[in-house]
Amino acid sequence: MNDTDFSPSATPCSSLENKRFSLMKKEGSARRGVYMTAHGPVQTPVFMNVGTQAAIKGGLSAEDLGCIGCQVELSNTYHLHVRPGDTLIRDMGGLHRFMRWDGPILTDSGGFQIFSLASLRRIKEEGVYFNSHVDGRHIFMGPEESMRIQANLGSDIAMAFDECVGIPAEYKYVSASCDRTARWLARCKEALSRYNAEDDAVNPGQALWGINQGATFHDLRIEHMKKIEELDLPGYAIGGLAVGETTGEMYDTIEALEPHMPADRPRYLMGVGTPENILECVHRGVDFFDCVMPARNGRHGHLYTWNGVINIKNEKYARDESPIDSACGCPVCRKYSRSYLRHLFKAEEILALRFSVIHNLYFYNSLMEKIRAALDAGEYESFYKANIEKLDKRI
Amino acid sequence: MNDTDFSPSATPCSSLENKRFSLMKKEGSARRGVYMTAHGPVQTPVFMNVGTQAAIKGGLSAEDLGCIGCQVELSNTYHLHVRPGDTLIRDMGGLHRFMRWDGPILTDSGGFQIFSLASLRRIKEEGVYFNSHVDGRHIFMGPEESMRIQANLGSDIAMAFDECVGIPAEYKYVSASCDRTARWLARCKEALSRYNAEDDAVNPGQALWGINQGATFHDLRIEHMKKIEELDLPGYAIGGLAVGETTGEMYDTIEALEPHMPADRPRYLMGVGTPENILECVHRGVDFFDCVMPARNGRHGHLYTWNGVINIKNEKYARDESPIDSACGCPVCRKYSRSYLRHLFKAEEILALRFSVIHNLYFYNSLMEKIRAALDAGEYESFYKANIEKLDKRI
Repeated sequence: MNDTDFSPSATPCSSLENKRFSLMKKEGSARRGVYMTAHGPVQTPVFMNVGTQAAIKGGLSAEDLGCIGCQVELSNTYHLHVRPGDTLIRDMGGLHRFMRWDGPILTDSGGFQIFSLASLRRIKEEGVYFNSHVDGRHIFMGPEESMRIQANLGSDIAMAFDECVGIPAEYKYVSASCDRTARWLARCKEALSRYNAEDDAVNPGQALWGINQGATFHDLRIEHMKKIEELDLPGYAIGGLAVGETTGEMYDTIEALEPHMPADRPRYLMGVGTPENILECVHRGVDFFDCVMPARNGRHGHLYTWNGVINIKNEKYARDESPIDSACGCPVCRKYSRSYLRHLFKAEEILALRFSVIHNLYFYNSLMEKIRAALDAGEYESFYKANIEKLDKRI
Repeated sequence: MNDTDFSPSATPCSSLENKRFSLMKKEGSARRGVYMTAHGPVQTPVFMNVGTQAAIKGGLSAEDLGCIGCQVELSNTYHLHVRPGDTLIRDMGGLHRFMRWDGPILTDSGGFQIFSLASLRRIKEEGVYFNSHVDGRHIFMGPEESMRIQANLGSDIAMAFDECVGIPAEYKYVSASCDRTARWLARCKEALSRYNAEDDAVNPGQALWGINQGATFHDLRIEHMKKIEELDLPGYAIGGLAVGETTGEMYDTIEALEPHMPADRPRYLMGVGTPENILECVHRGVDFFDCVMPARNGRHGHLYTWNGVINIKNEKYARDESPIDSACGCPVCRKYSRSYLRHLFKAEEILALRFSVIHNLYFYNSLMEKIRAALDAGEYESFYKANIEKLDKRI
């Protein structure tokens, strides 16, 4: 065991909660900032690297996350509650220590998974009754339970427990759901503040972020945002997008909502997206992103380059000695050829998955770094124009 | 691309072939030596790490091999001929450059896989006709074809093309098979020497090792050994063991054969074995080993420790904060806990496989290092006694 310190390095008192984010620069609606967590600062805009079950799919370890420029690891409340159990992780010293990642961690609330994975779901005012997707066991989760689990995990950013409504949805249903999600948020805040004050809190500096809902109904989005802003939380997410609407509808909704989001708090667009989506949404004032897509695409051999997306399984790469992308500095591109990587896919070697996920996540982290550099230089518009047509294109 | 030189560093002329091995020390029949390849020296006794398809199962790269103390990587002639094709690998600069491993590589001849994997096999004097296990395609492989493929791969040690007879086997069949394998060996030697002399040879310093056969018939083993020794090759393997006989029969056969093997050439026991097997066979004068077992056991959660084999999936490790083996210096034991590794297995994360294979191969390489150190110190007997009962034991 090494002696890295996995305990939170700073425990801001609650009066400092709204000082966590510093907005350093703006270009149009695009924002360059820094957000302070109990495990260090996060330079924004940022893409969070998804390790659903406390591990990154494709065989990447916490050490690998460091090598690929990850700033924030994102784990999943629902999955970790089901397996291995959040109390086990608390007993092992919390998620940072369990997975040996000493940087910032965000945990989602479990809401999205309950609404996408679990079966026999019943939503009540108190919370949601459902069956585990692993063993069918009956589980109840409400705001307090979600906060308890996230407090046990000890992440730096805990997400509010919300209902993520699929699109298309009835206006009336969404409106009622938003009201309940707002009531749930107040309970989340009350509960987490109680858990943070416990003597044996895993991470007393854990922050709660609210989640805006309202489907693609702009008035509901704005109304809900106003309600949850009153709770004065250190960050706000836009949830319930990229769940069935068109990309145009998603952008329109963000544009309508953005002026109503507090300018001094970070905005996190949950579950988005492609490089093009990210460029568009940074342009629309979003600071935090996460998505399983780069890792999943990688595992299918779809690899990002600065000229577009290649399918490494194509015959044309069989004797290609060049790296995936000669402009990429990732550990795979620095050493291995397309020819070898294609062979690994054809031979169904696990190393193919590892190499591809390393490359794609490095690409995403590096894209964000370039976005930040462009914002620093006041050149985001030209960076956007130079890349917006290219990066999602299959070549 | 880094600028590591993957070309062979030394090209001994053929008159030096039999000077490749230096026997430095003996303790009983156990031997401490060093074998020189075109990609550097190999300290013996040694365990070769198996990367069948030019990659180590479990998502390990050539860089990882360096980190776990691998001296010799072993790849498979038959598999690489079928996919991606040995001519492709030749065109990519040979196997070293293809997989970015600049240390010694041994390739087996394909014989074992033809006899264990391929279907519709017909053995003739000229070679073997069979169907590919991947796509059913008709393939012919004889001594010249096997040498051509291995020359294209450019390994440092090419193994003779032989018939690996399963046990139990008829005396008469084995005797005739041994005669044919000896005739094949002469053809292998002639062919490889021709390929090595080609102007564009991938690895002109590639050495041919003979393979002794004869099932568990001691007289056939000895007779065959005498025949193949006449070809004055730089190394000799014991093939056709660990294919159905008891461990006792295997040890007896080695003991009967060993005095008839040339003392100034390395001996390689193919496909063996457990730590106990290795200790027993070093004791009986074997220098080279290889086996898929440590990697395969790792992928099933069976992990070697200096006190025996643990099954990491056991409930008792759920909250165990200690490393797999506190006496182990592998990259996994230096950082991660049993609790986390068990979770990775239960959650079916690929990282579980990677961590386990890293640990088990490191353990094997480290076992060999300790064996060499014990031989250097003249203390092999006490090392053997201290470990022979422990290492294979399930605890």
